[in-house]
Amino acid sequence: MSEPLVAVDWGTTSLRAALLDGDGRVLAEHASAQGILAVPPGQFASVLAAACAQWERPAGQLVLMSGMVGSRQGWQEAPYCPCPAGFAEVAAQLAWVQDAPPSLRVAIAPGLSCEQDGVPDVMRGEEVQVFGALDLLGLDGGLFVLPGTHSKWVRVQGRRIAHFATFMTGEVYALLRKHSILARTMAQADGALDTQAFTRGVEHARAAGNLLHAAFSARTLSLFGRIQEAALPSYLSGLVIGEELRSQSLDAAQGPVVVIGSDALTARYELALQCLGVRAQTVGPQATWRGLWSIAQTLEQA
Amino acid sequence: MSEPLVAVDWGTTSLRAALLDGDGRVLAEHASAQGILAVPPGQFASVLAAACAQWERPAGQLVLMSGMVGSRQGWQEAPYCPCPAGFAEVAAQLAWVQDAPPSLRVAIAPGLSCEQDGVPDVMRGEEVQVFGALDLLGLDGGLFVLPGTHSKWVRVQGRRIAHFATFMTGEVYALLRKHSILARTMAQADGALDTQAFTRGVEHARAAGNLLHAAFSARTLSLFGRIQEAALPSYLSGLVIGEELRSQSLDAAQGPVVVIGSDALTARYELALQCLGVRAQTVGPQATWRGLWSIAQTLEQA
Repeated sequence: MSEPLVAVDWGTTSLRAALLDGDGRVLAEHASAQGILAVPPGQFASVLAAACAQWERPAGQLVLMSGMVGSRQGWQEAPYCPCPAGFAEVAAQLAWVQDAPPSLRVAIAPGLSCEQDGVPDVMRGEEVQVFGALDLLGLDGGLFVLPGTHSKWVRVQGRRIAHFATFMTGEVYALLRKHSILARTMAQADGALDTQAFTRGVEHARAAGNLLHAAFSARTLSLFGRIQEAALPSYLSGLVIGEELRSQSLDAAQGPVVVIGSDALTARYELALQCLGVRAQTVGPQATWRGLWSIAQTLEQA
Repeated sequence: MSEPLVAVDWGTTSLRAALLDGDGRVLAEHASAQGILAVPPGQFASVLAAACAQWERPAGQLVLMSGMVGSRQGWQEAPYCPCPAGFAEVAAQLAWVQDAPPSLRVAIAPGLSCEQDGVPDVMRGEEVQVFGALDLLGLDGGLFVLPGTHSKWVRVQGRRIAHFATFMTGEVYALLRKHSILARTMAQADGALDTQAFTRGVEHARAAGNLLHAAFSARTLSLFGRIQEAALPSYLSGLVIGEELRSQSLDAAQGPVVVIGSDALTARYELALQCLGVRAQTVGPQATWRGLWSIAQTLEQA
């Protein structure tokens, strides 16, 4: 049995922390809206101390953090670790925080970078979720999807992240949903997911092969009365997620497909993948705690 | 020699009119911001009368109009004419305005509709520009591009529009440029086009094969200092126009490629097409006048 760990997922708009025992079990959790954009300069140490003040901690307690806290806008920049990268590479490149609160040893996991067609790609925090999912599911490889504002598709081979790609799916959905001409015929509230309209969107995105064209169908189908206005947000969601899926190689021979995220979002991706005949596994946000815990184990063993 | 014609291009946000002589020559032009959204209910006739009040006109003067004036939100709905459609089909389906100003005969050219993969597509006004370009360039067919908020790609065979497709290129550019995370590192003003950054964007869009992914490169290239911030708007413009081009079959055997529009926009498309080894012809906004005049000729001969 190893030492307890404080694991922190510190993003742009939220702070989540957990106290884990030596076996990686979650003993307590804390969440607040104190994302890095809400922390005044010089106040990161006190915000962290307050976040885990209610937990009994030994002197020299290890705190491992991931997410945008390691970006230029965060507490301390943790330079990106280039792919391929696994537990060992990330553990070796932890950024140890200089102005940690008294009696805490605080480190930030580096984000990952990779390169394709002469263009870099980056992520911060998702790599830790992938590591956690690997451990929770007992996998060595596969294709990992982390849906969100900027979705990540991560290819893992031999417990190392070989490559990944970002898709601005959530952000483009929100822009089309709220600010484009398509918004004019859509209700303000999203309502429950209309699965039929959603899968219709997924399939049309694949047939059209280009979201700039496919998105216009949300307007024309409405204009010709061929879709209910209430179903349009679900249809548009299917179009953008379908567009994201269109670019993935989902060959089963390359290993399982795993979706990591909240229930609502993973359910949409499971459904979209089903349209393509792919059965995905899912893992919830606890993947972060498991990932940080596994990095801490690697650190102990190093 | 035929009769003179008043030709009107009445869109959502602008009204343009021209007086043409019997040979289609433009004698005078008028332009205002009185697009259909700016016209109070019941005032279309008086706005039109005022727009051509300064021109001497014979009794029974023919006025041909195209654009959103024929939409549900316009003066009078002109039902879409299904493709394939040429001069004759459009002339036969003109919507004659019931409440025209005294001494004017006023008709609205119908927009066109087509269908692919069970999804309709529509345009209003662009079909007239294509007809005008056919006459101005002496062509029977080809691929016609009308760049804009909603770009149209129009396939013409035997002087009839066989098929077309809409791409929300201009609108998605504006959304990404002004409202997305990419906007944070871009100057407010666009500045002059940086042709090198623009062609780099066109090429990356093709390589990436998906704008949801390619757009993120505007962020990472900037993050890694591999592109000047001042060049980002041009790079992003290349990305979205490159994405639009990615879906076109530009096989030279299918006839010439013609770009119709303002100088600034046609120049970008010419440049993007050059990246793909395609040399395009261009036609300016006068295509509308020629198109309406040609429909009037067809009407006279019918």
